[in-house]
Amino acid sequence: MAKILVLPGDGIGQEIVPEAVKVLEKVAAKHGLDLQLQEGLIGGAAIDAVGKSLPDETLAMCRQSDAVLLGAVGGPKWDTLPAAQRPEVAALLALRKGLGLYANIRPCFLYPALVDASALKKEIVVGTDMVVIRELTGGLYFGEKFREAYTVTSLSGEEVEMGEKAVDTLVYTTPEIERILKLAFETARKRSGKVMSVDKANVLESSRLWRETAQRMAADNPDINLESMYVDNCAMQLVRDPKQFDVIVTENMFGDILTDQASMLSGSIGMLPSASVGGEVALYEPAHGSAPDIAGKGLANPLATILSVAMMLELTFNMTTAADSIRNAVERVLNAGYRTGDIMTPGAKQIGTTEMGALVREQL
Amino acid sequence: MAKILVLPGDGIGQEIVPEAVKVLEKVAAKHGLDLQLQEGLIGGAAIDAVGKSLPDETLAMCRQSDAVLLGAVGGPKWDTLPAAQRPEVAALLALRKGLGLYANIRPCFLYPALVDASALKKEIVVGTDMVVIRELTGGLYFGEKFREAYTVTSLSGEEVEMGEKAVDTLVYTTPEIERILKLAFETARKRSGKVMSVDKANVLESSRLWRETAQRMAADNPDINLESMYVDNCAMQLVRDPKQFDVIVTENMFGDILTDQASMLSGSIGMLPSASVGGEVALYEPAHGSAPDIAGKGLANPLATILSVAMMLELTFNMTTAADSIRNAVERVLNAGYRTGDIMTPGAKQIGTTEMGALVREQL
Ligand SMILES: CC(C)[C@H](C(=O)O)[C@@H](O)C(=O)O
Ligand SMILES: CC(C)[C@H](C(=O)O)[C@@H](O)C(=O)O
Repeated sequence: MAKILVLPGDGIGQEIVPEAVKVLEKVAAKHGLDLQLQEGLIGGAAIDAVGKSLPDETLAMCRQSDAVLLGAVGGPKWDTLPAAQRPEVAALLALRKGLGLYANIRPCFLYPALVDASALKKEIVVGTDMVVIRELTGGLYFGEKFREAYTVTSLSGEEVEMGEKAVDTLVYTTPEIERILKLAFETARKRSGKVMSVDKANVLESSRLWRETAQRMAADNPDINLESMYVDNCAMQLVRDPKQFDVIVTENMFGDILTDQASMLSGSIGMLPSASVGGEVALYEPAHGSAPDIAGKGLANPLATILSVAMMLELTFNMTTAADSIRNAVERVLNAGYRTGDIMTPGAKQIGTTEMGALVREQL
Repeated sequence: MAKILVLPGDGIGQEIVPEAVKVLEKVAAKHGLDLQLQEGLIGGAAIDAVGKSLPDETLAMCRQSDAVLLGAVGGPKWDTLPAAQRPEVAALLALRKGLGLYANIRPCFLYPALVDASALKKEIVVGTDMVVIRELTGGLYFGEKFREAYTVTSLSGEEVEMGEKAVDTLVYTTPEIERILKLAFETARKRSGKVMSVDKANVLESSRLWRETAQRMAADNPDINLESMYVDNCAMQLVRDPKQFDVIVTENMFGDILTDQASMLSGSIGMLPSASVGGEVALYEPAHGSAPDIAGKGLANPLATILSVAMMLELTFNMTTAADSIRNAVERVLNAGYRTGDIMTPGAKQIGTTEMGALVREQL
């Protein structure tokens, strides 16, 4: 029995999640997985219904599930709330921390049919196939933050107020670095064995601890080919020559920036699935947000969410064949020339969210 | 009389700076600028000569100059030094802080002749012309950093050591944010009036102060069209549709990452000049590093340094015509099909550092 909690959330989350759930149901039936689906409230939808973007009940339901499928949270309606109450932070960050999801896995794969949808030249981007592993519960996201009056002492000895001072803290400990690198090493073992650890060790103390820890662990794992690269160089290399990368591992904020950038290698962020793991229950969600501009119009690309279901089957239920059947179905639909707006190119057939979902299911 | 301090530094710095100096001499002679050039020690070269990568004498010479032209610092010979003594940090960061250079200006312009050298598709990248303004003396670079033992209390009440804990601090104050935004607004006034302020206000307190300050200042400057964008989205948009940007302003670490990424829009980081301003004397340098892999071979692209001289003439000496004459000379050489290795494409004529310098001077 597979207990799965479904959290559609806001905006296009309400449109893409149902398509992915129908894919899950079809694959589960075919591969003999007994599903028990529940739906929960999260994000702006939860604020509107019960006054809180991550209701305690939702968190409790997560803990009782084998896996969670999330759509997206946030939207203009809740953008005027104080930062700490907005769905992106109050729901997403609280869920990550609350469930102990310290690792975010984002595979970045370019389907050959989508080469033309990429902003990069064909010869640069064709064959891109990497996994970015982002630390998800440490660093600047969860370190102490505060704001206070900023005063300077004048020549006459008076304290003069000059506005405010805002502080964020970037903290990493050895065990936090070790566990995420361990996951990167395990991931690399199933691939080429190559790991690129990304840091800013020439400037940051936390990055120096990160790099030392990575190098010490690499010495103990001779089957892993570890290299380190500075984050600024990595941002450049991801454009210049993305195929040099296989597994990238990095801290929370660098991972946030680099995964969004890397999404462009797959044609659109609408193609990128993700898994957040390491805690009580794994969370699967598309890498994109709630896209208020196209929400409610049936235009959103459901493939990132459908591919997140594939990750769920593989990582939580160990059903590699079922997962691959989804990926192959997606590939066949793309090869047949069907595209949502975000990956549309001249000559292809533009379709909407529900058609894309239906076409993938037909191919299963 | 224009007193200019020349700091070639390490690696290709020794090759590209002499070419740029010869360009400066020719333009100065033509435009009646009376030059007084001095040379100083910096980087690994200074460590080898006097045991310190930023000798006090060099800092004093900077202060007595009207402008400083820097090549690059660092190299494998000094990579085994403790982080804080390595040239990239001990020379570059100390120079920025020591001279109060709080603003780094990096124009990112694609010469039409180099469209084929870019990793991005022609239709995405052609016409790219933006300026990134990076805060240079605040944030994670200069906040308090430390490392300490990381202990946790065991069930039996004992303190158990679990490795180390490393901390960096991200601090911004209102006046720091105001002065860099003021420069961005001034820069935008000479262009389209559009400013994109990049932050991570959904997560960082320092970014929230940044965004509030930017919005307050925009309200006081109705001729400026200010928008704010999250850094992860910006990293994606710089690949997806770079032409949407004109002036970008951001904090130190985000600026480090985004400018390296944006350098790919100009074909090569070897094309990108920079100016660091706001302090006692302005510093001009290519955006790239000392490139140990090609140093000493006569292969390096001197154009970023030559274009840094153009920025010097424009910003320090107010000689726009002279600056433009350099930019036009560079454009003519590129249009004639000459390329260093980093911007080489099939059918072009590959040349080395000194030939490129000579060709630019011929066109002046
Ligand atoms: C919405 C935001 C808080 C979040 C993050 O920064 O982690 C998002 O950008 C992501 O990458 O999941
Ligand atoms: C060398 C390094 C310390 C420096 C920085 O991070 O600022 C460099 O990357 C730059 O952008 O000038």
